[in-house]
Amino acid sequence: MSLIVQKYGGTSVANADRLRNVARRVCRTKAMGHDVVVVASAAAGTTDKLIAMAHEISNDPHGREYDMLVSTGEQISVALLAMAIQELGCPSVSMTGFQVGILTDSAHTKARIIDISTEKVLEELHKGQIVVIAGFQGVDITGNITTLGRGGSDTSAVAVAAALKAHRCEIYTDVDGVYTADPRIVPSARKLNTIRADEMLELAGLGAKVLQLRSVEFASKYNVPLEVLTSFSDEPGTLIVQETQNMEEIVVTGVALVKNQARVNIFNVPDRPGVAARIFGAIAKKNVDVDMIVQAKNREGEPDMSFTVSKLELKKTEQAVNEAIKGLGSSGMTIEEGFAKVSAVGIGMRGHPGVAAQMFEALAANKINIEMISTSEIKISCLVKEDQGEQAVRAVHESFQLGEPSGAATSA
Amino acid sequence: MSLIVQKYGGTSVANADRLRNVARRVCRTKAMGHDVVVVASAAAGTTDKLIAMAHEISNDPHGREYDMLVSTGEQISVALLAMAIQELGCPSVSMTGFQVGILTDSAHTKARIIDISTEKVLEELHKGQIVVIAGFQGVDITGNITTLGRGGSDTSAVAVAAALKAHRCEIYTDVDGVYTADPRIVPSARKLNTIRADEMLELAGLGAKVLQLRSVEFASKYNVPLEVLTSFSDEPGTLIVQETQNMEEIVVTGVALVKNQARVNIFNVPDRPGVAARIFGAIAKKNVDVDMIVQAKNREGEPDMSFTVSKLELKKTEQAVNEAIKGLGSSGMTIEEGFAKVSAVGIGMRGHPGVAAQMFEALAANKINIEMISTSEIKISCLVKEDQGEQAVRAVHESFQLGEPSGAATSA
Repeated sequence: MSLIVQKYGGTSVANADRLRNVARRVCRTKAMGHDVVVVASAAAGTTDKLIAMAHEISNDPHGREYDMLVSTGEQISVALLAMAIQELGCPSVSMTGFQVGILTDSAHTKARIIDISTEKVLEELHKGQIVVIAGFQGVDITGNITTLGRGGSDTSAVAVAAALKAHRCEIYTDVDGVYTADPRIVPSARKLNTIRADEMLELAGLGAKVLQLRSVEFASKYNVPLEVLTSFSDEPGTLIVQETQNMEEIVVTGVALVKNQARVNIFNVPDRPGVAARIFGAIAKKNVDVDMIVQAKNREGEPDMSFTVSKLELKKTEQAVNEAIKGLGSSGMTIEEGFAKVSAVGIGMRGHPGVAAQMFEALAANKINIEMISTSEIKISCLVKEDQGEQAVRAVHESFQLGEPSGAATSA
Repeated sequence: MSLIVQKYGGTSVANADRLRNVARRVCRTKAMGHDVVVVASAAAGTTDKLIAMAHEISNDPHGREYDMLVSTGEQISVALLAMAIQELGCPSVSMTGFQVGILTDSAHTKARIIDISTEKVLEELHKGQIVVIAGFQGVDITGNITTLGRGGSDTSAVAVAAALKAHRCEIYTDVDGVYTADPRIVPSARKLNTIRADEMLELAGLGAKVLQLRSVEFASKYNVPLEVLTSFSDEPGTLIVQETQNMEEIVVTGVALVKNQARVNIFNVPDRPGVAARIFGAIAKKNVDVDMIVQAKNREGEPDMSFTVSKLELKKTEQAVNEAIKGLGSSGMTIEEGFAKVSAVGIGMRGHPGVAAQMFEALAANKINIEMISTSEIKISCLVKEDQGEQAVRAVHESFQLGEPSGAATSA
């Protein structure tokens, strides 16, 4: 008998009808002869309501009490879902993170899973129960309730699947799979049957918000077969795998867009060791993610430095940089808003040096200026003006023929 | 240093302002040099909302999942209350029944407390923390979340106070103490400074819904000094004690009214052993509480039997009786609605045989017919027509001079 872990997100458990819909799907899987473990999120909107209650009391609530509060959202979902499953005649039992034994560190509001005890879950599965586990939550070594941070239920599901050595972890969400690009931007975008985990990692990090980044890392690390699909239809989804067949032929797998980018330029940064560390250390202390970084010598032979951050974090970044460059002799800093980042991702581009050139040509042909470039082994990112972002995605998508049912190909 | 347990009900924690109000009171008690443990209910309305969600899924949800669901109400309250206390600069930590170690039996939705572990609470108190414990909930021996039934937070508070050997358990509610009668019915009703626990038990059982019956029993059993007071003012409340001073002088302590009573009469019940057991056994099986029972021989020498039940349970009672008397040779049953029960309660009436007579006289003087009488050691109850119920309470209250500040006295 194989074990399947199914994770249902907030929109899938948002009301009684949807809970019944999920219960039917779960019972059907059970009827096919599988053991089923379900991981559920809080109903859409519930977590936000709980957070609003906390903020009525405190601008900066203590993490421990915050976790105590918001973890109730998932507890409500799993109790109701177990009831809905029981109504269909399938034995079911709900469990909190505490009851399962999902041990995390004590970093409240963004805890990391250390260990998952399988004993109680296996015991219930052996009794024929469908076990419904609260996602997003765990418990630290002293018994405090912790949460994994937003979107953490995906990570819960993958971690549970890994601990139970499940045959498959199915993530049900409100999109029906991973696409070559956002279909709202690129009408010809095609759903991928499979994607490699490392490609998915780049795409997830680049704004294709299908899965939480950490859950994909977890799935890679523990080799858990992961499938993204929707609970609103019976369409097959996208399988996230460690290796793909005929990998060589696929050069670019998908194109992603991240908006709301801002660029910071620092001029005449002194050319001596430790300066970059000082600047980016100050930014990191403010908990700001820096994205693309470019450093080049200017005409005077002193380096200029540019990097991008989210527009939302620009203020914090500005403060940090101003403090860091005091007394460094830099000739100052400028800030520019209104950028978007377009990225082509694909495991196959490793052996194809022409991919970058093809992407630049596609943008040039559409009169889109490239403001900055950064590359990794399986990704090329270009910063463009924000109002040209969507056009840029369509241009790159078309250039690599990602909409073709034969799979992505390249002329390079 | 003395330890005080304070319990706050649903109206006291209903919103952010009220939580802040409670937090101020808690911190003030702490500032006076006491250790403080707080037990909180779910915010008014929350439990009903959760129950409504369950009933959208199932007409008869399993007890285990039901408890998993409704226990979140108290968890939300304690997290928010601990935040509110922290905002005032007092260290505080919230705890679920699970975290405290409130061990109950496995009778979901109406579990009974078996044991309370004091270790973790004492540890936090020693660190100077104000410990905020979720009322109404516990955990059974296998780690399932249980609830104590409606109003169970009072019982949680008293049980926690008993386990911790607290100096006092203060129950904050939306009334400011125990009165000689309902002030809405009897304007001259007086708040009692003290009441004996056994009197309180009779009054609570008789409809003075200030405290849950089980919490008073618990306080008696473990000798916990209990005070009922309101969180909306600084007025002293009513102290519930095991012994009162000058007890001999106080004959009647209070007068209670229970409306919506119905009477069932069974005629010509055969006069042989086992018949009453058969009838009341059948009623008990339907989970109906029978209140006053009167049996008397009629002219033919066969017993007639009458008893009262709540109007709401009349239908179930009728079915049970009809089945039970089949083949008994009874000449049938009648049902009457529209009664109320008026009761005088007082520990001092034990040595005063004239109390019953004085009560009957007071009713007669007001032309109120007595339909049925039942007595206990410290209580006399009379069934009267419902539309005369409030008048009857006023008459008895006046006759025993319960509104006099000198304390209740009797002319008997």
